[in-house]
Amino acid sequence: MTDLKKALMARVQPDLEAIEAALHDNLTPHLELVREVAGHILFSGGKRLRPLLMVLSARVCGYGGNFDRTFSVIFEYLHAATLLHDDLVDGARLRRGKPVAHTVWDNSTAVLTGDFLLARALSIAVRTQHHGIIEIIAGITEEMSQGEIHQLSRIGDLGLSEADYFQIIRCKTAVLFQGACRVSALLADAPKAEETALADYGYHLGIAFQIADDLLDYTAQTQALGKTVGADLREGKLTLPVIHALAAADEPDRQCLEAIIKNTDFSESEFQTLVGLLDKYQSLKYSTEMAAGHVAQAKAALGFFDVSPARETLEMIADYALERKA
Amino acid sequence: MTDLKKALMARVQPDLEAIEAALHDNLTPHLELVREVAGHILFSGGKRLRPLLMVLSARVCGYGGNFDRTFSVIFEYLHAATLLHDDLVDGARLRRGKPVAHTVWDNSTAVLTGDFLLARALSIAVRTQHHGIIEIIAGITEEMSQGEIHQLSRIGDLGLSEADYFQIIRCKTAVLFQGACRVSALLADAPKAEETALADYGYHLGIAFQIADDLLDYTAQTQALGKTVGADLREGKLTLPVIHALAAADEPDRQCLEAIIKNTDFSESEFQTLVGLLDKYQSLKYSTEMAAGHVAQAKAALGFFDVSPARETLEMIADYALERKA
Repeated sequence: MTDLKKALMARVQPDLEAIEAALHDNLTPHLELVREVAGHILFSGGKRLRPLLMVLSARVCGYGGNFDRTFSVIFEYLHAATLLHDDLVDGARLRRGKPVAHTVWDNSTAVLTGDFLLARALSIAVRTQHHGIIEIIAGITEEMSQGEIHQLSRIGDLGLSEADYFQIIRCKTAVLFQGACRVSALLADAPKAEETALADYGYHLGIAFQIADDLLDYTAQTQALGKTVGADLREGKLTLPVIHALAAADEPDRQCLEAIIKNTDFSESEFQTLVGLLDKYQSLKYSTEMAAGHVAQAKAALGFFDVSPARETLEMIADYALERKA
Repeated sequence: MTDLKKALMARVQPDLEAIEAALHDNLTPHLELVREVAGHILFSGGKRLRPLLMVLSARVCGYGGNFDRTFSVIFEYLHAATLLHDDLVDGARLRRGKPVAHTVWDNSTAVLTGDFLLARALSIAVRTQHHGIIEIIAGITEEMSQGEIHQLSRIGDLGLSEADYFQIIRCKTAVLFQGACRVSALLADAPKAEETALADYGYHLGIAFQIADDLLDYTAQTQALGKTVGADLREGKLTLPVIHALAAADEPDRQCLEAIIKNTDFSESEFQTLVGLLDKYQSLKYSTEMAAGHVAQAKAALGFFDVSPARETLEMIADYALERKA
């Protein structure tokens, strides 16, 4: 564990414990099976980043109520729902080193449990009785499903542009981060400018996290990642490093890259050739710099608020986005 | 077409046209693909029963606004979302005589388009800014997913009781009918007693419709049904006629029934043997009478309202539940 991660974990420990308890308390399914399947995805070592962002954002806005922890589970339930559906979409076998729900149970159970978590998240949102909050949360779900469909429809498409990529990751990742930060301002009845600042923070953090996540597919070790390195490319999913390299490469290198990408059953040595080309065209560096740029923008957005422990923790989370290894 | 259906269709034609237009106008996806997949399930000859119930219920309550038709699409979108997910869960190939979405496209696209429709429905609900309405609609989705999981978890379970069956169909079917009728009272700002009367009507109608639907699997012709007769049983899905027969049969007949049910690859002649036993133990008659009882309760609930064309149409819909052939 890095020093930053250690310091961060120490700061957020009490919040994480409260979030963990709230995740259990708010599930309330009729059926034991739903609890088991939902629990399999919910209680398998997730970082709880999204609920944590919500709780910290509320604190930055001076929220004094006691609904923030209950409310924060919305963002983990939504996240878990999309993981259940996406793992099925991607044909994934492992998540955080554990077999995914649709292999432990079956596709149907995974789909329906995802639906339940989605609905449960919305029911908790309704309990705020705050129209703006409910609207944002319903909107997040619309954007996320469309982001996933967009990504799916462009599988194996070598013409995927950087703009397409950013549109996809905005929908599938950044809107949820953005929503988690933004609605806390509404919950706290904070001024519009605070809502905007937190929305900006969440948006840029989400983009940075997704770029970093996509980078890990080329830089991490399978064991640390808890899933197979190179998995994105095997699924025909082009992410920023590859999109950059394809655009930057000379003709022979581009043909070499294309040949490897088109053959989704590429060998380990072909994958290393590809990573070598990503290196040659500084595509990993470029992607890292893009992520760093968004981290800087996220932190800049926090400048709107007075310095406080919660603001510092949010800044540390932004820095952490760049150094995660899994 | 029966006389009742003809008369009913003539009465509701203008509403159906308005609903059809609203279903198109409110879809608003970012991507053409989402429009295509959602359109495949939405515009393939659905009866529009749920939005129609909502519009008619609002009229019975004297609703004078102009949001009812927009609002009614919620119930068709929710219905379509569950069909997309359920067809996948059931491994169905045909729906209304057309190949299902997950075979035309793929499982993933069907799942994600279902998610989009679910989210779209909730976003439209949010536009009412009516807390009670949004709460009911979020709750419907929770109940439906749990009903489907309950059904799925009891596949092939010969111990499924009549009480289990009614709990499943309440969740998977009746809560949506009930919700469509009930929220219209909220939209119309009607007194609580009217909300309760419409909720009762919708609940009993939903139960009757599902029993009738389950009966069709034993009584209809494949062509009229638009899917294969006996499909429920082949999927290991026990419905009221079979549950009744298993409980009523003598030992040899029960063993015969069990043998056919356990072999989900039963022949046409085995299926006819089973239907013969359903007949012998009056299980089809029993199920029809149960449906008729719920239709009577649905109509009785409408007695709370003064006679009006809208109330008459709702009564006709209840009667239609018993005579549909597909």
